[in-house]
Amino acid sequence: MSQPLRLGIAGLGTVGVGVVRIIRQHAELLTARSGRDISISAVSARSKNKDRGIPLDAYAWEDDPVALATRDDVDVFVELMGGSDGPAKAATEAALAAGKHVITANKALLALHGQALAEQAEAANLSLRYEAAVAGGIPVVKALTEGLAANEITRVMGVMNGSCNYILTRMEDSGLNYQDIFAEADGLGYLEADPQLDVGGIDAAHKLAILASIAFGTRVNFDAIDLEGIERVSIEDITAAADMGYKIKLLGVAQMTGRGLEQRMQPCLVPASSPLGQLQGGTNMVVLEGHAVEQVVLRGPGAGEGPTASAVMADVMDIARGFALPVFGQPAHTLKDAKHATSVLPAPYYLRMGLVDKPGALAKITTVLGDAGVSIDRMRQYGHAQTSAPVLIVTHKATRADIDAAIAAMEGTGVLTSAPVALRIEEV
Amino acid sequence: MSQPLRLGIAGLGTVGVGVVRIIRQHAELLTARSGRDISISAVSARSKNKDRGIPLDAYAWEDDPVALATRDDVDVFVELMGGSDGPAKAATEAALAAGKHVITANKALLALHGQALAEQAEAANLSLRYEAAVAGGIPVVKALTEGLAANEITRVMGVMNGSCNYILTRMEDSGLNYQDIFAEADGLGYLEADPQLDVGGIDAAHKLAILASIAFGTRVNFDAIDLEGIERVSIEDITAAADMGYKIKLLGVAQMTGRGLEQRMQPCLVPASSPLGQLQGGTNMVVLEGHAVEQVVLRGPGAGEGPTASAVMADVMDIARGFALPVFGQPAHTLKDAKHATSVLPAPYYLRMGLVDKPGALAKITTVLGDAGVSIDRMRQYGHAQTSAPVLIVTHKATRADIDAAIAAMEGTGVLTSAPVALRIEEV
Ligand SMILES: NC(=O)c1ccc[n+]([C@@H]2O[C@H](COP(=O)([O-])OP(=O)(O)OC[C@H]3O[C@@H](n4cnc5c(N)ncnc54)[C@H](OP(=O)(O)O)[C@@H]3O)[C@@H](O)[C@H]2O)c1
Ligand SMILES: NC(=O)c1ccc[n+]([C@@H]2O[C@H](COP(=O)([O-])OP(=O)(O)OC[C@H]3O[C@@H](n4cnc5c(N)ncnc54)[C@H](OP(=O)(O)O)[C@@H]3O)[C@@H](O)[C@H]2O)c1
Repeated sequence: MSQPLRLGIAGLGTVGVGVVRIIRQHAELLTARSGRDISISAVSARSKNKDRGIPLDAYAWEDDPVALATRDDVDVFVELMGGSDGPAKAATEAALAAGKHVITANKALLALHGQALAEQAEAANLSLRYEAAVAGGIPVVKALTEGLAANEITRVMGVMNGSCNYILTRMEDSGLNYQDIFAEADGLGYLEADPQLDVGGIDAAHKLAILASIAFGTRVNFDAIDLEGIERVSIEDITAAADMGYKIKLLGVAQMTGRGLEQRMQPCLVPASSPLGQLQGGTNMVVLEGHAVEQVVLRGPGAGEGPTASAVMADVMDIARGFALPVFGQPAHTLKDAKHATSVLPAPYYLRMGLVDKPGALAKITTVLGDAGVSIDRMRQYGHAQTSAPVLIVTHKATRADIDAAIAAMEGTGVLTSAPVALRIEEV
Repeated sequence: MSQPLRLGIAGLGTVGVGVVRIIRQHAELLTARSGRDISISAVSARSKNKDRGIPLDAYAWEDDPVALATRDDVDVFVELMGGSDGPAKAATEAALAAGKHVITANKALLALHGQALAEQAEAANLSLRYEAAVAGGIPVVKALTEGLAANEITRVMGVMNGSCNYILTRMEDSGLNYQDIFAEADGLGYLEADPQLDVGGIDAAHKLAILASIAFGTRVNFDAIDLEGIERVSIEDITAAADMGYKIKLLGVAQMTGRGLEQRMQPCLVPASSPLGQLQGGTNMVVLEGHAVEQVVLRGPGAGEGPTASAVMADVMDIARGFALPVFGQPAHTLKDAKHATSVLPAPYYLRMGLVDKPGALAKITTVLGDAGVSIDRMRQYGHAQTSAPVLIVTHKATRADIDAAIAAMEGTGVLTSAPVALRIEEV
């Protein structure tokens, strides 16, 4: 039997407590499977005296996570505090400088500083692992870096923020609008202290940036993501999309195009009958597509104590088993700076607009679309609401530029009663 | 850069050709990700002169897979011939005896000889890997042994034979009966040379036996599986189940009970709206449940050149990266002989029967059920077909023994016009 693997855990919130609990309650199982005892040397959090529902006296206490990260009796520093900068970053750097492996659940840290941290870790032959940072309990980092390691990845997609998916599916079920359901979710404690991280798509975009780097061998580039949150998704669009056989999801998509890497995190339509379309509530889903494997879909809890701790512990087990691989699946110094492409790939679009109730109004719109090179696949006109007739259009594949040009031209026709909504339909 | 990793590949059929193709066409990618060149030293198949659509002259040829497995210039023996015994087993044993790692896609070999082979491999500190053997392209062995390594697994379920799922979903779509769709699938080349491997559930049961061993730390025990194929699934049951909100799937379930390990591979009902219920055609799905992660669902192609080769190559990449872990996730000599439990866990059941068209017939049946301790959740009686009235019943949770007792008692009532069908409803 090898030496025990000794952890120092900074952060004893939802995830940290979950990790301590697994180590306390399943010690034998972990040893049977990894061949080593897994022990905790020291822990850190802000307040020493908070009751966290688990006994902590067996572990040394450090007020300062940097001090924890560099202790002699720590082999692996486990960062579960959060925040892209501040103590999480400082302690991670200190741990690597002191020759410790690092495990983190912190997508913000990796999305913003992943390249530098990966270079630091790899230069010192250390592991920096983050299974819990992407899609919580779903072992998607492992699936992509290892399970699909022989694939040229063609596309990665995911619904990776449970709060947003909860809001969107609740809107559909209840018929209530965004503001009402946002308030409900907030009241239930489903949203981050800064809800913009959730509903603005930032948290999900952090995860997408990480997956894109692994998938395409590129440097993580959060700023290159076309980012739009769910705040402007209206109940009218959810209902109309459902009518046409679609669901609206906050969908992340990363895809390599002839003109560079396209990364999008925005509300999209997906077929209601697809696995993504059927995803309800807070569950996450990631779709991985590769030249050989075709398509693999992973579904599971994206957050919560048990699932997130499960993922952190998978990283612990890998380190205990002696597995070492580059942070993003290939050495950080070989990762390329991807050219940033925006909306290169054409797609069908969903358009919704209100038209004045006059003969010829619809003809003007279809003419404008035709002139912009956008052809119509399906169209539906609803019974007139007062003087405005809502119209839904599903286009054939078009570029975003053509759609935008068409919308600009529509504004000039004088037949619109409301600004057109245009949402991409992702083919899944 | 380390030494290249040199493969010897025995079997150049669907999977073998797929593996050679990936190595030829994506050499750079494999090297970038694993840090080593992956090369092929030698290959073997039955007929040397068959055109396999790929150039093979760069590789040495061996007629005898045992000779291939023991060549000095082979580091990893890749067994892609198939068959639980014969050359696959002989060459695997020879490779391990000669100090070679082994990768196989052969579920029959592992389900029947996994324990002995694992002991041989582990005694020699060698890897024996088999990602492709279970659910084709889905990285499920990795998800279970590594991604969920910190979980006490509570249940493993899966639809793991694409041909059976194709037949069942085609029956539902077409309304045709089993014999017709079986013939169609056979004509399309979807079935093994011995179709009993598919429709008898044997192939899927091989996979379940492997997953159960990993999940529960038990010796693989194929003979302990309660096995029933899809031959007796009637179109009447598919239609009636759909009417009640269910789909019929050939579902494998492994679960530890207070009285031992229960392993079932049999036609079951699952809710039509669940991920398992929505699985169409040849796609596979595995559901993994653990104490911490709750539930993770993996979906993807269970067969075919690209997906299966993707999984074989994932094993190659892991070996190239130096990852080593016990064959079934914990050392083979620590795996326990599980007590074999049958139908311990109660479940709701679906019952279908024909009743004589006489007053009081239904009352007799419900009385008999009540006497056997089986309570009724939902019941539906259809318009009379000539003199027989079809009745569907969904029970509350009952044991199989109670259901069997109730059915035996029904036979004595004299009101049945056809033998009752009873199918377990798996709660997913
Ligand atoms: N919650 C999830 O489901 C989930 C899922 C995936 C990933 N993650 C990620 O996991 C990380 C932790 O999330 P969480 O939900 O567990 O957060 P949390 O419940 O807010 O806990 C954060 C912990 O960090 C401690 N902490 C904060 N600043 C500190 C400092 N300067 N020094 C020492 N300790 C400090 C806090 O101490 P006090 O308790 O004393 O305040 C608290 O114990 C984040 O990066 C998050 O994005 C979370
Ligand atoms: N096909 C799939 O989608 C799939 C998916 C998962 C797992 N698997 C497993 O992968 C394995 C291979 O499947 P496959 O579909 O590729 O089979 P296949 O197409 O029938 O190919 C079998 C290959 O093995 C060769 N072979 C048979 N006996 C041999 C012997 N005694 N010596 C040397 N070579 C021999 C054959 O040679 P000839 O070509 O000269 O006849 C052929 O090239 C099986 O264990 C199967 O269960 C297959």
